[in-house]
Amino acid sequence: MKDNVFLILGGDDRSLYLGEYLEKQALKVCYYAFNQTDCFSTLKDAIAEASCIILPLPLTRDRVTLNAPLYDGTILISDICALASADKIFFGGQLPVSFCEEITERGSYFCDYFELEELAIYNAVPTAEGVVQVLIESLPITIHRMKCAITGYGKVGKILALTLRNLGADVTIFARKPSDFADAYAKGIRTNEYEDLVHEHFDFDALINTVPAKVIGARELSSLKPECVLIETASSPFGIDFQAAKEKAFEVIKASSLPGKVAPKTAGEIIGRSILPILKSRGLTD
Amino acid sequence: MKDNVFLILGGDDRSLYLGEYLEKQALKVCYYAFNQTDCFSTLKDAIAEASCIILPLPLTRDRVTLNAPLYDGTILISDICALASADKIFFGGQLPVSFCEEITERGSYFCDYFELEELAIYNAVPTAEGVVQVLIESLPITIHRMKCAITGYGKVGKILALTLRNLGADVTIFARKPSDFADAYAKGIRTNEYEDLVHEHFDFDALINTVPAKVIGARELSSLKPECVLIETASSPFGIDFQAAKEKAFEVIKASSLPGKVAPKTAGEIIGRSILPILKSRGLTD
Amino acid sequence: MKDNVFLILGGDDRSLYLGEYLEKQALKVCYYAFNQTDCFSTLKDAIAEASCIILPLPLTRDRVTLNAPLYDGTILISDICALASADKIFFGGQLPVSFCEEITERGSYFCDYFELEELAIYNAVPTAEGVVQVLIESLPITIHRMKCAITGYGKVGKILALTLRNLGADVTIFARKPSDFADAYAKGIRTNEYEDLVHEHFDFDALINTVPAKVIGARELSSLKPECVLIETASSPFGIDFQAAKEKAFEVIKASSLPGKVAPKTAGEIIGRSILPILKSRGLTD
Amino acid sequence: MKDNVFLILGGDDRSLYLGEYLEKQALKVCYYAFNQTDCFSTLKDAIAEASCIILPLPLTRDRVTLNAPLYDGTILISDICALASADKIFFGGQLPVSFCEEITERGSYFCDYFELEELAIYNAVPTAEGVVQVLIESLPITIHRMKCAITGYGKVGKILALTLRNLGADVTIFARKPSDFADAYAKGIRTNEYEDLVHEHFDFDALINTVPAKVIGARELSSLKPECVLIETASSPFGIDFQAAKEKAFEVIKASSLPGKVAPKTAGEIIGRSILPILKSRGLTD
Repeated sequence: MKDNVFLILGGDDRSLYLGEYLEKQALKVCYYAFNQTDCFSTLKDAIAEASCIILPLPLTRDRVTLNAPLYDGTILISDICALASADKIFFGGQLPVSFCEEITERGSYFCDYFELEELAIYNAVPTAEGVVQVLIESLPITIHRMKCAITGYGKVGKILALTLRNLGADVTIFARKPSDFADAYAKGIRTNEYEDLVHEHFDFDALINTVPAKVIGARELSSLKPECVLIETASSPFGIDFQAAKEKAFEVIKASSLPGKVAPKTAGEIIGRSILPILKSRGLTD
Repeated sequence: MKDNVFLILGGDDRSLYLGEYLEKQALKVCYYAFNQTDCFSTLKDAIAEASCIILPLPLTRDRVTLNAPLYDGTILISDICALASADKIFFGGQLPVSFCEEITERGSYFCDYFELEELAIYNAVPTAEGVVQVLIESLPITIHRMKCAITGYGKVGKILALTLRNLGADVTIFARKPSDFADAYAKGIRTNEYEDLVHEHFDFDALINTVPAKVIGARELSSLKPECVLIETASSPFGIDFQAAKEKAFEVIKASSLPGKVAPKTAGEIIGRSILPILKSRGLTD
Repeated sequence: MKDNVFLILGGDDRSLYLGEYLEKQALKVCYYAFNQTDCFSTLKDAIAEASCIILPLPLTRDRVTLNAPLYDGTILISDICALASADKIFFGGQLPVSFCEEITERGSYFCDYFELEELAIYNAVPTAEGVVQVLIESLPITIHRMKCAITGYGKVGKILALTLRNLGADVTIFARKPSDFADAYAKGIRTNEYEDLVHEHFDFDALINTVPAKVIGARELSSLKPECVLIETASSPFGIDFQAAKEKAFEVIKASSLPGKVAPKTAGEIIGRSILPILKSRGLTD
Repeated sequence: MKDNVFLILGGDDRSLYLGEYLEKQALKVCYYAFNQTDCFSTLKDAIAEASCIILPLPLTRDRVTLNAPLYDGTILISDICALASADKIFFGGQLPVSFCEEITERGSYFCDYFELEELAIYNAVPTAEGVVQVLIESLPITIHRMKCAITGYGKVGKILALTLRNLGADVTIFARKPSDFADAYAKGIRTNEYEDLVHEHFDFDALINTVPAKVIGARELSSLKPECVLIETASSPFGIDFQAAKEKAFEVIKASSLPGKVAPKTAGEIIGRSILPILKSRGLTD
């Protein structure tokens, strides 16, 4: 077991911190596609040496080349696939279907860590802190006593609501499920139905969307006061209708992919903490 | 819609508070099987008048008669069933299968509110306060800085852990799912695997079980210090092996069905708050 | 330094726990006036052996005999005084002036630990938990979402307000100093002037007094709803006018001296933690 | 009473927000030394019209001219003094002794709102949020689980410790008074003596100073790990020895006067909320 080599292949600071985290667990870690810290001279050598290859989040931004911003060269996703074999395990985030299929065909096991529920929960903490930073930077008032609306009460919405409430904000969530209302009620957070956003008027200082589906359109915007700052944390297709917001002259701040930006070291450790039990269950660590 | 009558049929103080809560929503509420407050002289009259019959939690303690501790008489479950018809709606908690079948056969709609996820979440708050009361009463130390273990991290475990942490306790949960560990980690709560209870030694001052399945047996008890107080909040088949605990001379406190005991008014309102959206969706209220 | 003997002289469980706490600090502890655990046969022997004599809180309930509920015999305060000498240090709580004078005359150092500010702060925690217990026991609703008023915002008021807020209560404090209002505002607690209690109407579910001076008289009671439960935590001359409350049929609960009742072990440790730095500064411990 | 005019004289956005806050209290507010919003053509006219003149915080940065960054012109402090008379009230922050003396000599009342204890408490909230922003921006890890040291446990230290703890940080304060240790203990915050900073080793991720007196010198820095980020929130003479920190290659961030930078609107309202009771007690408002 001691001889297993874990290859951190590509990615940004977060990947380097992930490697550091795995080293702290007494694992043997190597790096490729980082210029300075590279342990190998070719991709082939790197993958040959490793039992476990850990790819970045996202794996690729153009569907062709590896996401490797700290590397001067270019690595094709297809070249990585071509080196897969039955004795290798691949981890990566937001893996394209084609990648997964080819890896499987070649007998390798793969895991998209971005799809692990626990990673999404761990990541909600740096996401919430990123929103805290945006709120402090962008509004002339304190979060303490700020009137904050949050659309969506999933993993990010839950942690964000608790974080803002802990900072003394007056938090209202918009959700649909009765069990979400109950959870928020138990935590001292106000609740509203989405429809209320259409029919009532609210004096929120900030509205933070966490839903990757259009929930804040022209009609909903009409219920907000003009100074309300809109913060979008979800990814495409987004929850805020940017065009409608622009027409109504709302300030909109896009704040997606916060963990890697706000706290790359924590974000790297989160990936490590999420994949460690899987490594363990597959016999790669104690 | 204004003419719908809601009959509170049997139950304890909680049912009376539930009636009071519905009256506050401007509903027309009647009572039967409470002696003093009864609005009718016979069960038949009572049910005949009502569109919606709200039964207690649990419906029955002996599978034959209605749970009606404030009533001098006796009402058979079968007599209630016999009065069901297509224009009636029945609500109740922990309904036996036979009851549900007969009600359905006679064309009535029924809903077991005890199975609503939101009710379980709302109820976790009075349950947590009940545990707080037990801890203050039973231990010679404050909850502040108390070392508390909680087995199970479901609805009760989550709210209880947060409540005790908010009181300054040092809380450790025992759970199985990686997503539960992540949730607890995000909330500043310690986590452990159940297996650790077998292999390690812990100096918990109190251990609170929330799992209705044996998780604390002789081997787990061996890892605890003798003064650790054991509190069982789950119902049968329970999480603590009482026989083993007795043999090892642990103090065990059974604290089940806490909401109705600790806060009957809140518990009644919780039932009301949980069934109101259903009444609304079925056109019985606005 | 190792040869210093610490005598726990009289008191209840709290004093025994205090002794236990000092033993844990590797001090040599002896006991007298507890029947079972006594280390000496006479008071004279006990005091002769000790460098430091630790008396209970309160020292005496009748101004004549030592407060020693676990002891079958009777010890006169005057007999303790008579055994004081320049090489002894005395600690005790709520020491009568006459006792302090006589001790000083005989050259002994004494410290009334009840007057230490830090002890009052530490004790605010078990006091707050005692109030939590009373609230859970006495009201049919949960502390969560309960409307609680607190009169006074000193050491107990501050910790109590935070504790109840952390349990989800809607807390309002009544105070006088602008800095107290600022402190409460910063912690998300509502504030009011005492005069508002006379002029406005409030729907508090419970009012807890922490001020040992009449603040809740007939006029203030008129602003409360009849179901409001009144809890008195202060000692004589009390803050609630009991006679007026009785006439208006309010439920009043006296809950004084809570730390020793609610958490005797913690209360004993608190005395230990408070006097330890003094022992250290006088060269009695490392 | 309705005819009293309140003149906001100089200052930045915070002063404008303060004026807005006073207008919301239905007071008649005028402005001078802001270019755009000025209501008068000369200083003499402005002061002649006003009953109450509200000066900025600080009054002056060079001891000669008014602090008026939004004004193109220059106003001498001495010119303001020359216009004082018995029917005027002056408010300002960090007023020089010479200013106070001259104002008094001319029969005007003055109040340095910066010296009000309540203002310092209110300001601790935006100060704490400013530190939160710095921590999120400057460290690659989340505040959640961050190991934070705070030197000083006065108004800022207390609120900051609570804020960081509420965000999930592991907070340790360094203080001197036993009552401060008790307060921190009650709130679940770790405590240490300053001397420990010399004798022990700590793995803090960040150390935030709140004491305006040298407490972190070369010896204290030796106990910290090199990556520890040092944040100075106090004003001159500062708590961190910047020279020593530079020699040891620590990252030091100066973050003073945070309220006006982080939340100018809240900071303006805080001044308003602090002076309102004084205006009231002097008969200038209802």
